[in-house]
Amino acid sequence: MNSRDDSLEALPLRDDLRGLSPYGAPQLEVRVALNTNENTHPVPEPVVRAVTRRVTDTAASLNRYPDRDFTNLRTALASYLGHELTEDNLWAANGSNEILQQILQAFGGPERSVLSFVPTYSMYPLLALGTGTRFIAGERAADFSLSAESAARQVGEHAPNIVFLCSPNNPTGTALGLDVVEAVYEAGEDRNTIVVVDEAYAEFARFGTPSALTLLPGRPRLIVTRTMSKAFALAGARLGYFAADRSVADAIRLVRLPYHLSSVTQATALAALEHHETLLGTVEDIKLQRDRIVDELKRLGLTPAESDSNFVFFECGGDAHAMWQGLLDQGVLVRDVGIPGHLRVTAGTEAETTAFLEAVESYLARS
Amino acid sequence: MNSRDDSLEALPLRDDLRGLSPYGAPQLEVRVALNTNENTHPVPEPVVRAVTRRVTDTAASLNRYPDRDFTNLRTALASYLGHELTEDNLWAANGSNEILQQILQAFGGPERSVLSFVPTYSMYPLLALGTGTRFIAGERAADFSLSAESAARQVGEHAPNIVFLCSPNNPTGTALGLDVVEAVYEAGEDRNTIVVVDEAYAEFARFGTPSALTLLPGRPRLIVTRTMSKAFALAGARLGYFAADRSVADAIRLVRLPYHLSSVTQATALAALEHHETLLGTVEDIKLQRDRIVDELKRLGLTPAESDSNFVFFECGGDAHAMWQGLLDQGVLVRDVGIPGHLRVTAGTEAETTAFLEAVESYLARS
Repeated sequence: MNSRDDSLEALPLRDDLRGLSPYGAPQLEVRVALNTNENTHPVPEPVVRAVTRRVTDTAASLNRYPDRDFTNLRTALASYLGHELTEDNLWAANGSNEILQQILQAFGGPERSVLSFVPTYSMYPLLALGTGTRFIAGERAADFSLSAESAARQVGEHAPNIVFLCSPNNPTGTALGLDVVEAVYEAGEDRNTIVVVDEAYAEFARFGTPSALTLLPGRPRLIVTRTMSKAFALAGARLGYFAADRSVADAIRLVRLPYHLSSVTQATALAALEHHETLLGTVEDIKLQRDRIVDELKRLGLTPAESDSNFVFFECGGDAHAMWQGLLDQGVLVRDVGIPGHLRVTAGTEAETTAFLEAVESYLARS
Repeated sequence: MNSRDDSLEALPLRDDLRGLSPYGAPQLEVRVALNTNENTHPVPEPVVRAVTRRVTDTAASLNRYPDRDFTNLRTALASYLGHELTEDNLWAANGSNEILQQILQAFGGPERSVLSFVPTYSMYPLLALGTGTRFIAGERAADFSLSAESAARQVGEHAPNIVFLCSPNNPTGTALGLDVVEAVYEAGEDRNTIVVVDEAYAEFARFGTPSALTLLPGRPRLIVTRTMSKAFALAGARLGYFAADRSVADAIRLVRLPYHLSSVTQATALAALEHHETLLGTVEDIKLQRDRIVDELKRLGLTPAESDSNFVFFECGGDAHAMWQGLLDQGVLVRDVGIPGHLRVTAGTEAETTAFLEAVESYLARS
């Protein structure tokens, strides 16, 4: 233990945080970075100009606090989502992590619990820990799928205060059927359980995959979260949001930090929404590359999961960490999500996808 | 109770949040807004240009996540503060509210407590509530002052895990002597208490008022927080930060949301720090107006507190809410901080200050 760890050890850190390491994928300088499910297409020029224009317009009045209720942004988000949603149904924060943290602060916390079905987004247990909420790791089938019957049974068994359903699921990539969401919602009726469907990757879903947004009417305990980090190619702007009954947004107002969303963030997100068709123009190309990865990995003898997202989870037929290192040695960074024998790769541009597939082929030939 | 409240009531909100209202001063459209201690001087043109330039430079790569460790920003903040601090001593977040929330998540939370001395910044109990930390309301003297002896005695009595010292204090405006900080730190030795000095308004302190930054060497449990919302005239950009022993930043890394600080926020703050001399150019003028408010209110027979901040807290010799309304009727919005017989006003530009003083004089003449 070095002196830096010693001095951390001497601080009165909460007991449940002792010995932990900060969350986060390595931020390495590599030729091809396909490890954090970013949209690897640069922001298009018209959007850059719109962001610049809106930020310039707001810069002179940055001495004033932002619009605490970000009404224009909520209106623009409602209009983008459709489904007859209005600004009262919308809420936004600095990334969907902050959205989920706010939900846990309002409905979770000490002596309350949140259930999710692992493997799933690895931030869920950390967000639970940070808010003092007990995390319950529910189970999936051996192929990582989750049926309505199994999910409802586990909700009945654990009686959680909150359920997080990640759809499409990260890191496995497949969307849940809406029957699962409906069954979980019904199973949570007795306990008044909040059901969160995390649709961070929804824009990449295969044709015909419905969104849980269609289930919102008549379900006041249902929250559907989205992000501008993925399809919108705005991971650097940190904008997550949700749609739900208007009472949910009222509840979150009791725990949100006042003025949590800066004027610059609001301006950037508004500029992006103005140009959402341009920004989402890359989605079809990314889906093509994703399907190409699935097909090619199968051809190479590996076992990829079906994907509704901008990434592919695959069984690599051997030591996952060795393959991760073998790809990194060729300048291609993917994600070792800690599931033995599996890796996850982001679908990038055509050139990046080619580089990844060539690196896999070359690694397999050598090992 | 209307139907909106009914539907909020039906949600499984945490018991300790039921019946509360969201925090926040009214955001009213008025001629002269002096209620939230903003710097009312617009951001100077060279800073607007620098913000625009830096945001434009970052916009094309917003598809990528931000630098999670915001190293350039921490370096620039350390250089601004001086006191031989380095980037390892610095941490930043979306406003100092998020800084304080992160401190409570790391060192407070369930079965832990935070002590502060009321009246003080009204977000402290709300941040405690949001993180499940027990808030202990310590006492001040009748004139709202706090002596080293009294503060140390109360720390010994309550044995809190964290102490928040607001200096200059909001809403009363006066800075604490460093003897108070030293005494509190020593009194917290047995319990390993974290001591936070919230110096949001430090740049406005009267000549010769030392910063708690001078006490950092050899005090690993001491944290000094600052903000760019006040003297830096960047309330809309949401940038709070702290300086402390490097182990404190390591502790906060265990609870911070990954990528909590957007690329746009980092760019904006860097542009402002580049031009800190220009931005801080308004501070001397604001201090002049503040001293003018103190002098004139005395002349009018009211009792203002001595101020080290950009606002003045004053006893208005009657019904505070009536005076608040009387000023608002004349287009001047000040803050009713809920302390009987007292109001708080921000020192604005010379013209705004004149408008406020004329409104007070006219109100007093009529009542």
